[in-house]
Amino acid sequence: MGKIQKAVITAAGRKQRSLALQSLVDRDSEPKSALRILLEEALDAGVEEVALVVCPGDQDAYRAAAGPLSGQLVFIEQREARGYGHALLTAREWVGPSSFLHMVGDHLYVSRELARCARQLVDTADSESCSVSAVQSTRERLLPYYGTVGGRRVPGVSTLYQIDEVLEKPSPTEAEQKLVVPGLRAGHYLCFFGMHVLTPSIFEILNDQLQSLEQGTSLALSAALARLARKERYLAAELNGARYDMGEKYGLWTAQLALGMSGRDREELLLRIVEMAAGRG
Amino acid sequence: MGKIQKAVITAAGRKQRSLALQSLVDRDSEPKSALRILLEEALDAGVEEVALVVCPGDQDAYRAAAGPLSGQLVFIEQREARGYGHALLTAREWVGPSSFLHMVGDHLYVSRELARCARQLVDTADSESCSVSAVQSTRERLLPYYGTVGGRRVPGVSTLYQIDEVLEKPSPTEAEQKLVVPGLRAGHYLCFFGMHVLTPSIFEILNDQLQSLEQGTSLALSAALARLARKERYLAAELNGARYDMGEKYGLWTAQLALGMSGRDREELLLRIVEMAAGRG
Repeated sequence: MGKIQKAVITAAGRKQRSLALQSLVDRDSEPKSALRILLEEALDAGVEEVALVVCPGDQDAYRAAAGPLSGQLVFIEQREARGYGHALLTAREWVGPSSFLHMVGDHLYVSRELARCARQLVDTADSESCSVSAVQSTRERLLPYYGTVGGRRVPGVSTLYQIDEVLEKPSPTEAEQKLVVPGLRAGHYLCFFGMHVLTPSIFEILNDQLQSLEQGTSLALSAALARLARKERYLAAELNGARYDMGEKYGLWTAQLALGMSGRDREELLLRIVEMAAGRG
Repeated sequence: MGKIQKAVITAAGRKQRSLALQSLVDRDSEPKSALRILLEEALDAGVEEVALVVCPGDQDAYRAAAGPLSGQLVFIEQREARGYGHALLTAREWVGPSSFLHMVGDHLYVSRELARCARQLVDTADSESCSVSAVQSTRERLLPYYGTVGGRRVPGVSTLYQIDEVLEKPSPTEAEQKLVVPGLRAGHYLCFFGMHVLTPSIFEILNDQLQSLEQGTSLALSAALARLARKERYLAAELNGARYDMGEKYGLWTAQLALGMSGRDREELLLRIVEMAAGRG
C-alpha cells in the first residue's frame, strides 16, 4: 500500500474542540499541549504531514498549541457541523489517492513498549496491506462510549481480527447479537482505540453516503467503516498500549495519570498521591 | 471593618491567563472551569460582586468560563503588563473605600472543613478588624515559588500571626535571617496561600510605590504588603485547608487530585489510581 505519509486528525467536534489545547506534562517530563503530544505520535509513525480538521476560526489557537511542530500542520475547515464522517471527508482532496493515518483529536495514547501506538498500527497496516483500525478489548459497560467491531481472529495472530461488522455505541443486546468475538474475555468487546489506517476507499463510501443523506444531517464514520468491511479486507489490531478519552469526566486527569505513571515522573506522581492520601498534600 | 462585599481576582499574568479557563471536576462532582470554582469560593464567603483583572481581549473567554456566575462578574483591564501589584491597583476605583477579598486566579483552594477557605479568611478578618493574609506552613525548598512572611504568633491563637516582614521568593539565607517564625516546624516558613483580606490602605501604598518607579517597571505586591505591616495591624492566618498552584508542573493534575480525593468522587479516583498502578488502566 506504500508508505503512510499523511495523517488526518479530526478536532472540530463541538465538545472536543478545546481538548487538544489543554496543557499536560508528557512522558518525557515536558509540558506540552495535548495537540503537540498527538502530533509527535503521528510524526513518530513516519508521517510527514498532518492535516487538522477544525471549526472555522480555531486555527490560531491550534497553531499556537502545536508550538514547534506547527510547520508540519495543515488546516482544513469543517464549515458545517455534520458529524465525524463528514469531518473526515473534508480531508479527501488533501489526502489524495493514498492510504493515510487517522487519529481523533480528543484521545491520548500511551504505549506499553518502545514503539508508540501509531507506529505499531502503521507497521501492521504496512505488513497486512489493508485498512486496519486499532481496537481495545473493552468492558461491556463502556459500550455507550465507543464504536465497536465484530469479527474473528486472524488465524495465527493473537492481536489481529478480520472485521465483519461495525456499530456505533451499540446497546448490550445489539453487541451480544452482532459483535461477540470468539476468544475475548467474557463481557468484553473490541472497541475503537481512536486511530485507523484507511485506504482512500473510505472517502468514496463516505461521499456515497453523504449523497443519500438529507441536507444538514450528520454523517457517521462507523456506518462507512461497516461498508468498508464488506468491500475490502479490513482488520482490527489490538495494540500494546492504552487510549485515554480526554473528553470523559476525569478524562484529562486520567490521561495525565497514565502519561506520568508510565514516564519519567512516575515517582513524583506516586509521591503526590501518597501525600494527598495521607492528608499532607 | 464592615462586611466584605467585594472580591478582586487577578488573572492577567502572562503565564496564568489560561489557567482559570482550564476544565476540572469540582468536589461536588460537577465539571467546571477553574474560574467558576474560584467564583463560587468568593461568593460562598459572602462577597456580592467580583472583579476580574484581565489582559485586554480576554473578557469573552472568561465570561464563557464563568458560566452561570458571569452576571456577578465585572472586568477590569490591566493595559500594561506591570506586575502583580499593578494588576491589583487597577481595581482601586472599583473597590472604593472598603476592605476587600483578594484571590489569585491561578490557585485552587481545598478546605478541610465545611467552611471554605475564603469563608474562614473573611471570618477571621471580620473578627480581628484588620488586614489578614492567608498563609500555609511550607517547606524551605518551596520558598522560590512564594511570597513569605515573618512574624510571631498572636498570643493565645495558634493559627494567627502578627506580620513584621514580607519578602517575595526569598533565598534560604534571607528566610533564615528575616522570616523564621517561632513555633513552626523546623525548616518551615509561612508562605502566602494566594488569598488576602486587605484594607484600602494597600491601594495608597501601591500608588505611592508606583509613582517612585520608572515607567514600565513592574510593581510587586509583596513590597507593598511589607509596608502595610509597618503602617497598620496586619495578620497572617493559617487556614484549615490547602492551596494548589495550577501553574506549577503537574499543578492542574494535583489540584484535580486534591478536589477529587476530598470530594464525592474519592473512590472513583482511587480506583483509577489502583488500576493504573496495576497496569490495567
